[in-house]
Amino acid sequence: MPVDYSLYLVTDRGILKGRSLFAAVEEAIRGGVSLLQLREKNVCSRDFYHIALELKELANSCNVPLIINDRLDIALAVDADGLHVGQEDLPLEVARKLLGPDKILGYSVSNTAEAAYGEKNGADYLGAGPVYPTGSKLDTVDPIGVEVIKTIKESVSIPVVAIGGISRSNAAEVKKSGVDGLSVISAILGSPQVEENARCLKNIWRA
Amino acid sequence: MPVDYSLYLVTDRGILKGRSLFAAVEEAIRGGVSLLQLREKNVCSRDFYHIALELKELANSCNVPLIINDRLDIALAVDADGLHVGQEDLPLEVARKLLGPDKILGYSVSNTAEAAYGEKNGADYLGAGPVYPTGSKLDTVDPIGVEVIKTIKESVSIPVVAIGGISRSNAAEVKKSGVDGLSVISAILGSPQVEENARCLKNIWRA
Repeated sequence: MPVDYSLYLVTDRGILKGRSLFAAVEEAIRGGVSLLQLREKNVCSRDFYHIALELKELANSCNVPLIINDRLDIALAVDADGLHVGQEDLPLEVARKLLGPDKILGYSVSNTAEAAYGEKNGADYLGAGPVYPTGSKLDTVDPIGVEVIKTIKESVSIPVVAIGGISRSNAAEVKKSGVDGLSVISAILGSPQVEENARCLKNIWRA
Repeated sequence: MPVDYSLYLVTDRGILKGRSLFAAVEEAIRGGVSLLQLREKNVCSRDFYHIALELKELANSCNVPLIINDRLDIALAVDADGLHVGQEDLPLEVARKLLGPDKILGYSVSNTAEAAYGEKNGADYLGAGPVYPTGSKLDTVDPIGVEVIKTIKESVSIPVVAIGGISRSNAAEVKKSGVDGLSVISAILGSPQVEENARCLKNIWRA
């Protein structure tokens, strides 16, 4: 079944200010999130595992695939639908080998060289960015802008989602670059109106 | 081939004060370390992977097995000889399933209930402790003392290594508890005389 990359939510419990991740994700999916990435950076493996188990059941019951950020062990342990690795994670080709050919494998890129590497070494899709400045400590790379996103998209034949500082005010501009989806964190989770936030982005995407 | 648990070094780059981990491990093995566990807590997956690759080559060239702490993904990625999980890591039975039946799987325990659980759910050996107070932030459990180590050892039929605050001044006492080995961090890596530190502990073990 083809993956719907249109509205790709990456989690960050840090910006939930104590609100439940499970409830927020449930609302986000109701609002139109089509793909979910669980990202946890300051948690022990046991807790990561249990959070992933919970979210997998939730996401899959709504026909939304669950992707795990960075941690191949957690992805394997919960039989997640995929893994997303960045430049500081396991090498892409190692991840692909251990994950098997059938799971979704994503790769973070900021330029066409990384994009070409990703396409050649087993990525199913690319997360290109950061498009705009981001408050999410997404990574340490400077914003690359919509033009570079467009260039990356045109340089490969696998799906590309844009990530980094995407909001309702710039989502239409990002869509025009030709990408296959919008990947967001704070634009959906950063304020309590999670379902509304997601629906608004989805409507911009569909327009 | 049976594993030699007699002198089990767990790494901690934090106490090396900038000295090279590779060089320290090399000296420690020369001094008599028979088993090596790579433990990294504040490093990205890419760096963990590269450190593990390097240490695996070193350890295996000296016929010393390399065990990875906590991270099953790293253990699989470098084809390490085994994995060690604690109470905050992946559940033991999940780790065993993903690791396969042939790799060494260790499990941290502080009491006989955890030891029984470990023996039943796939552990090849137990790391029991902390025996004494430790400066290594090994975990948050209070020291259990040599008597409890002895009780744990007598309650299972798999090998048990003692860990936590073991030094040349108490190693003989720990050995009397009947354990299969001494697991140490600072007693070997905490001062620059790494080879001498290891040899001294090995001699106490053999005495």
